[in-house]
Amino acid sequence: MKENRIYNFNAGPAALPLEVLEEIKDSFLNFAGSGMSITEISHRSKWFDDVINDAIARTRRLLNMDDTFHVLFIQGGASMQFCMIPMNLLHEGDTADYVNTGTWSTKAIKEAEILGKTVNVVASSEDENYSYIPKDIPFNSNAIYAHITSNNTIKGTQWASFPETGGVPLIADMSSDIMCGPFDVDKFGLIYAGAQKNIGPAGVCMVIIRDDMLKRVPDTLPSMLKYTTYASKNSMFNTPPCFAVYTIQLVLKWLEETIGGLDKMEAINREKAGLLYKVMDSSDFYSGTVKPDSRSLMNVTFRLPDEDLEKLFIEQALENGLGGLKGHRSVGGCRASIYNATPLAAIEALTDFMKNFEQKNG
Amino acid sequence: MKENRIYNFNAGPAALPLEVLEEIKDSFLNFAGSGMSITEISHRSKWFDDVINDAIARTRRLLNMDDTFHVLFIQGGASMQFCMIPMNLLHEGDTADYVNTGTWSTKAIKEAEILGKTVNVVASSEDENYSYIPKDIPFNSNAIYAHITSNNTIKGTQWASFPETGGVPLIADMSSDIMCGPFDVDKFGLIYAGAQKNIGPAGVCMVIIRDDMLKRVPDTLPSMLKYTTYASKNSMFNTPPCFAVYTIQLVLKWLEETIGGLDKMEAINREKAGLLYKVMDSSDFYSGTVKPDSRSLMNVTFRLPDEDLEKLFIEQALENGLGGLKGHRSVGGCRASIYNATPLAAIEALTDFMKNFEQKNG
Repeated sequence: MKENRIYNFNAGPAALPLEVLEEIKDSFLNFAGSGMSITEISHRSKWFDDVINDAIARTRRLLNMDDTFHVLFIQGGASMQFCMIPMNLLHEGDTADYVNTGTWSTKAIKEAEILGKTVNVVASSEDENYSYIPKDIPFNSNAIYAHITSNNTIKGTQWASFPETGGVPLIADMSSDIMCGPFDVDKFGLIYAGAQKNIGPAGVCMVIIRDDMLKRVPDTLPSMLKYTTYASKNSMFNTPPCFAVYTIQLVLKWLEETIGGLDKMEAINREKAGLLYKVMDSSDFYSGTVKPDSRSLMNVTFRLPDEDLEKLFIEQALENGLGGLKGHRSVGGCRASIYNATPLAAIEALTDFMKNFEQKNG
Repeated sequence: MKENRIYNFNAGPAALPLEVLEEIKDSFLNFAGSGMSITEISHRSKWFDDVINDAIARTRRLLNMDDTFHVLFIQGGASMQFCMIPMNLLHEGDTADYVNTGTWSTKAIKEAEILGKTVNVVASSEDENYSYIPKDIPFNSNAIYAHITSNNTIKGTQWASFPETGGVPLIADMSSDIMCGPFDVDKFGLIYAGAQKNIGPAGVCMVIIRDDMLKRVPDTLPSMLKYTTYASKNSMFNTPPCFAVYTIQLVLKWLEETIGGLDKMEAINREKAGLLYKVMDSSDFYSGTVKPDSRSLMNVTFRLPDEDLEKLFIEQALENGLGGLKGHRSVGGCRASIYNATPLAAIEALTDFMKNFEQKNG
């Protein structure tokens, strides 16, 4: 491939659209006629205002969202949101519901508990090694919010549809599947997504918060830990992570203008994931690790007959220009992360390789 | 100039060394033979380990620092440190000293107070519009730390030497002058610097913390707000801002290998600032705004006879390829930020322009 690039199946940081990378590269010494790099321009300039405002406008259009929602850019990744959410939204006597579908949900619960907040774990798939998404969850009607992880990057599960909570605002960690397809934003009080999987580079978290949730933010929090600080200053109370926001803007432009929006993106993602699951389902050599109704469109996890074969598979794949196929260090096996930016050609190259590898080693 | 670049006198985000920008550009589609962009590689890869470990090693060498100090990369800028420092270091009954030399010190004090901590403002230059650095400061011997802002970006003041505190660990916000020259790190318990002025792009803060300070960190803080989390995980408890850390690594390489270390950097900085202050001191047209013994090597602030002339100066300077000379919106006037990456040629172009402008308009 161009410049000896590989097909990148990393779980995050992950592949970015090639045309986005090329645009960054081409303008890197002189951004938008400024005579400066995007890394050198002032965040108080018209240039950067245009970048951040365009990123917000595109987010609104892509998610079909009105201005009761604020789009914020906050540093610290999803992990910082694990503490900011309970700090901002849960007061003395309040409780929140959490659904535990794996490592990231577990961490979100832990950080709320460190703060001494009252957390109800209303459902968990820990009993079957997080291989499924729970159903018929008994949400509490008096919970301030109900927290879910929309896609489990590590295990390869994803909510096929979002749960009914009886009016309690949903909060979702969408780090690994935001913008993978359309969904109804109106169910949500807050959505957050570390950018480095589906919408940009590491170093910024997109937070979408409904206006009424901002009213819960206490004055007693430090400025940098309050959602109201970001909402009132267009995420520029202090210097934002300009390069990361700029990259998000370009990814969203690509989603709108090259892909043609989230309906089309979802269709492509279904085709891509479908090809991989089909190889698994028609083989005794590759086996999926997740219940079929909980399979992720973004992270396709699978095992081979033994660990030696898995090691050989990952090695030979890399020799064939297919990188990042090793499963998460906590679970082993193989994982193909196929976010929006992973092209269909990459999946075709991978399925071809899988079939060949099975023929030789099966 | 190359690719129609301008001379960039912005206060932050600010100029980066051209050879750093060129290296980023040249390798942007394929970093270190990985077949991926630096924005696409896993932070759990050997490639990124090499980046972050080299950045840390270079920081140690440049600042002549042994391993009683930890070098951390934390998101949220210096503003996040304003709250993290008191959260981590001040317990019930503890007090800290702060010296107020302007906007950023004032914000640091405010965030500690929001947290209900006991802060002693032991000196302030507010009485003369922050135009000087206080002397003979009565530090409290029982303070847990003494906090200063080493350089005031907005007003253009800088500590010529660091104060004696009688053994109380200094903490300094060095966002706008870290690495401008050598200094004795052993006086400090903690040093922090938002990268976007002197060492990199926006989106990461370098924190240097002495080992004994880590012992003060309480278990009751959320993981992302504890220094111990970053120290124990080499700043990779969660995904770090990889691109920003990489850019810092390249800037530090440039400092060591192209410039030749901090002694040489300081000599260059003194020459650069000297040229500008000389123009002011030999003119009735340009006037400095800061007491001579408190002048900054990094941010040179000055006024013209009236605001109309200042507006014209800034406009015509930009037409001549000299950008970012407007003073901070809170103070007006003119400001040339001349961080490490601003070449001597930029200063010469600016002083030539200043002399010409005075001749025509003086």
